[in-house]
Amino acid sequence: MTASEKVSTLRAEMRKRNVTCLLVPSDDCHQSEYVCDYFKSRAYISGFSGSAGTLIISLDGAWLFTDGRYYIQAERQLAGSGIELMRSGSEGVPTPEEFLVSKLQSGDTLAYDAKCVSAKFAEGLQKKLAEGVKIVGDVDFPALIWADRPDIAHGDIWQLDEKYSGKSHTDKLADVRKVLSEKKCGALVMSSLCDIAWLYNLRGSDVKNTPVFMSYCIITENSDTLYVNADTASISDAMKAEGVTLRTYNEFYDDLKQLKDISVLIDKSAVNAAIVESLSGCKIVNDANPTLLMKAKKNPVELENLLKCHVADGLAVTRLMLELKFGEREFDEMSVDKYLYSLRRECADRVGVTLLDESFGTIAAFGANAAMMHYSATPIDPDSETPEYVKLDKNAPVPMLLVDSGGQYLEGTTDITRTFVLGNISDEIKQHYTLTACGMLRLLNLVFLDGASGSSLDIVCREPLWEIGVDYRCGTGHGVGYLLSVHEGPNRFHWRTGAAKIEEGMITTDEPGVYVEGSHGIRIENELAAVKGEHNEYGQFMRFENLTFCPIDLDGIDAAYLDKSDIRKLNAYHRTVFDTLSPYLCEKDRGHLEYLCREIK
Amino acid sequence: MTASEKVSTLRAEMRKRNVTCLLVPSDDCHQSEYVCDYFKSRAYISGFSGSAGTLIISLDGAWLFTDGRYYIQAERQLAGSGIELMRSGSEGVPTPEEFLVSKLQSGDTLAYDAKCVSAKFAEGLQKKLAEGVKIVGDVDFPALIWADRPDIAHGDIWQLDEKYSGKSHTDKLADVRKVLSEKKCGALVMSSLCDIAWLYNLRGSDVKNTPVFMSYCIITENSDTLYVNADTASISDAMKAEGVTLRTYNEFYDDLKQLKDISVLIDKSAVNAAIVESLSGCKIVNDANPTLLMKAKKNPVELENLLKCHVADGLAVTRLMLELKFGEREFDEMSVDKYLYSLRRECADRVGVTLLDESFGTIAAFGANAAMMHYSATPIDPDSETPEYVKLDKNAPVPMLLVDSGGQYLEGTTDITRTFVLGNISDEIKQHYTLTACGMLRLLNLVFLDGASGSSLDIVCREPLWEIGVDYRCGTGHGVGYLLSVHEGPNRFHWRTGAAKIEEGMITTDEPGVYVEGSHGIRIENELAAVKGEHNEYGQFMRFENLTFCPIDLDGIDAAYLDKSDIRKLNAYHRTVFDTLSPYLCEKDRGHLEYLCREIK
Repeated sequence: MTASEKVSTLRAEMRKRNVTCLLVPSDDCHQSEYVCDYFKSRAYISGFSGSAGTLIISLDGAWLFTDGRYYIQAERQLAGSGIELMRSGSEGVPTPEEFLVSKLQSGDTLAYDAKCVSAKFAEGLQKKLAEGVKIVGDVDFPALIWADRPDIAHGDIWQLDEKYSGKSHTDKLADVRKVLSEKKCGALVMSSLCDIAWLYNLRGSDVKNTPVFMSYCIITENSDTLYVNADTASISDAMKAEGVTLRTYNEFYDDLKQLKDISVLIDKSAVNAAIVESLSGCKIVNDANPTLLMKAKKNPVELENLLKCHVADGLAVTRLMLELKFGEREFDEMSVDKYLYSLRRECADRVGVTLLDESFGTIAAFGANAAMMHYSATPIDPDSETPEYVKLDKNAPVPMLLVDSGGQYLEGTTDITRTFVLGNISDEIKQHYTLTACGMLRLLNLVFLDGASGSSLDIVCREPLWEIGVDYRCGTGHGVGYLLSVHEGPNRFHWRTGAAKIEEGMITTDEPGVYVEGSHGIRIENELAAVKGEHNEYGQFMRFENLTFCPIDLDGIDAAYLDKSDIRKLNAYHRTVFDTLSPYLCEKDRGHLEYLCREIK
Repeated sequence: MTASEKVSTLRAEMRKRNVTCLLVPSDDCHQSEYVCDYFKSRAYISGFSGSAGTLIISLDGAWLFTDGRYYIQAERQLAGSGIELMRSGSEGVPTPEEFLVSKLQSGDTLAYDAKCVSAKFAEGLQKKLAEGVKIVGDVDFPALIWADRPDIAHGDIWQLDEKYSGKSHTDKLADVRKVLSEKKCGALVMSSLCDIAWLYNLRGSDVKNTPVFMSYCIITENSDTLYVNADTASISDAMKAEGVTLRTYNEFYDDLKQLKDISVLIDKSAVNAAIVESLSGCKIVNDANPTLLMKAKKNPVELENLLKCHVADGLAVTRLMLELKFGEREFDEMSVDKYLYSLRRECADRVGVTLLDESFGTIAAFGANAAMMHYSATPIDPDSETPEYVKLDKNAPVPMLLVDSGGQYLEGTTDITRTFVLGNISDEIKQHYTLTACGMLRLLNLVFLDGASGSSLDIVCREPLWEIGVDYRCGTGHGVGYLLSVHEGPNRFHWRTGAAKIEEGMITTDEPGVYVEGSHGIRIENELAAVKGEHNEYGQFMRFENLTFCPIDLDGIDAAYLDKSDIRKLNAYHRTVFDTLSPYLCEKDRGHLEYLCREIK
């Protein structure tokens, strides 16, 4: 079926049930950013495969809301579907919520799967909808038309050794129970897969590139129950030893309804609406999961491991750069991706860390494709049996390759972007490239007072581009998990939404960029660990420790756009890159790296 | 009576009434920052004369809480009083609220004058106090010991012509009523003197340096009542013509109690606790006064006037600088103050604007005195009959003079600080001076996207100092009224507290500094007007228009601490200073100004 046929079939089902509007979000039952295939109904119906988007279908229209990272991709993938693209974040574009509120009148019926929207969203929407709008929350509409829908994932689960996690489940649980007692709560209910994986020191394979497993947990003063969708034979002894009761995934909602007359701590933005409905016999205390901050502030063992896997990771991207700049191979967007993964495997061995997977699908985007923030290589002719991909060409109008990639190591999760200049680029693009590097380095070198939030620090990175009237329409950076999701809260650098304090041990990316549709895309991304700096009469100063070691392509830099302090920062960064990576390179490569890390004036 | 005797006398009164703790805030009945003498009971009792501070007296102790601006001054003024200084904002120092919460047990009684604490403070405190703590809110304790207390002020009131205000009371009232209708409120009650003065286009003389008058107002859909403490003969015709009912100050609380069964819009942080108690028959809608944002966003007439009076104001400070750097006069801290005021009068005439007053007591601080942010010149020997003040001395260890001053003009309110270097200063002080100027100029030249708040922009100014481990313990800047208070909300630059968006037409100061107790103080302050910049595919960019024209003393600048872009900004600023002021100077002064504004490399 085409997208347009799927929408028509859904409309027939909507009419049968007197439904005026159907909301199909991107969420699974766990408010995950990346979901297993079972939950990809928005992509199944609309054809838009980006990680974030909301589909709304009415009886006479259909709309797909997505953010700036995906405007260009969504435009292409929705072409001919009859689904209108709503560019979230652009001036005058309503949010899905605002859209529904303005569209639905008394007597209308809105349908969504209550297990696939957050409780916060559902409550906020219900408050704002006109009186008399009915809600149907217990019908899974996509299931009605999706014949070959995959199962809910149930892959292998395994334990993460304490030499990687740095803290036992028992100790983490004690910290969690301390918070419960402070908040006078009798229970904590969590459904966020990353929080659960972190808390139990378990990892799984249910979501592509994110080693989590489908699960819920209920923790009380004297019980600790984990609900898992997979075979638990491999972990049952270990869990028993730590006092964890294992139950099946499907038993969760029934058990939930047994909770009565106690205060239950849940994060309404991180659990689905059906969970809150099941807790109707309890007092709800709505607050962040205690694990959110604990997980974000990496412990010393995690930090030490991260430093190691980042050396391997930076080495892999550097070796790709060496091949692109000095090698003979010919690449297209897809072969770059494959070659880089083989380098990651080799470099992990060379440095002595264990690579398990990529941390997300590599973005290898040449020329104008790089203007799509979350591009993934697609065949030039999608209908061809022998797919061909865009070739890297030094003589192309914009001969630049953006590569955003990362690995899942036992030693942590990485995320790195470099944009390589393979031929001549215009002065304007050089200016954009230089100011992007400038912003990245300024944030990396920032000294700040403890207590500052990501919304206060963001502008340090963004200012050089704002000064010339350019903005990237996304955050400057996001938190990164430890062998978990590559996007993790609460920390982020964003002038609008970075309310969380940047605390000691947090890992955040620093990834400014310039994206000019149809022309070029530039992104340069390092990861930063927040660490304590000087403590003096003014208070506790903080600084960042750089985790990412890979040259910034000097062929994109025009020092005329830099201040002398920026040049100092760039040269100093390149010295640490050379010093860190050169022991792992052969003499020839070391010579080339020395050139890539040369001092500029 | 000494402070210590006053505290003892108050304790006797407390014991009579079974009061365990007495709270004496700095507030008047209007939550004003500057108050008329009647309300200066905290200063009367403790001897600490700063504008902000909270006194708490228990039966066995007394504590004065004040912020970083006043640490040094309070330390001196409290010496020997038995009152302990609590440095608010320093690590480990509780807020007055936290202090009371931890101190008061069930059965204890806390007393404060409910008319002199904000409703927000009273409610927050009551929620947190232990159960069983009683509150006495209707006794004015300072009155019990203050024999020669002044009357509540009742000075002259006058109308501000529309050629200065830019908008009639009638039009402003229509805007206010529109907000009331949007918020479904039947009445607005305001007690903030600046909001009232702005709304009615009236000015008064009840508070030193701030041309407001003691007043309240109640606005409903069809009534507009102003309660005034002074003789209203001079304004009664005009008010009648605009449909305003004038009532006396004392009638306000009785009228308030007549409001019943309607929704009343009040800002609990801007009205006293007794007002909210008087409205017990109404539904309270707690939100910012609608006038707050309207007043902050200066209209085109106000902006045009402000540009004019700032030229006069900058000219006056520049002429002081010319005299200090090239003249023969000898000054002390007090005579600088007087001389500057005479220059302000002369320059107002020369430029063709009308000076009414200073906008606050001038801070003229030499050497280490400048480390006190809100210093005012005090005699070297306070007991001498012929007071002598600290002399300006080029050979002093730190020969620098900080002058922070401003004027009240019909054309607006000004606030400007310059720090003059009168002899040799150390390299460290030069570094502090240079980085202070650097931060000021970076914020002045900032381009930002519409929607950014003062907490997101602040770091642009603060970063050069943070980089060397130095911080000023206050905001980077505050809003400024129009012929009203020199401190005005909601706009401010502060990484912790600058939540308000910086919107078109807002005037905010840009005043970084370095304050090293016992050594030196540096502050350089311009005022900035937020204006629209380029509108492009990324959205609406904003920038600042500089209002303040006065050289930055190049004798404090070491270009080695500056980037080339900072040097460009400094030179460009000095060119506009020279171009703006030189037409008003004689040839000799013009030559000197040219030297002060010389280009550096």
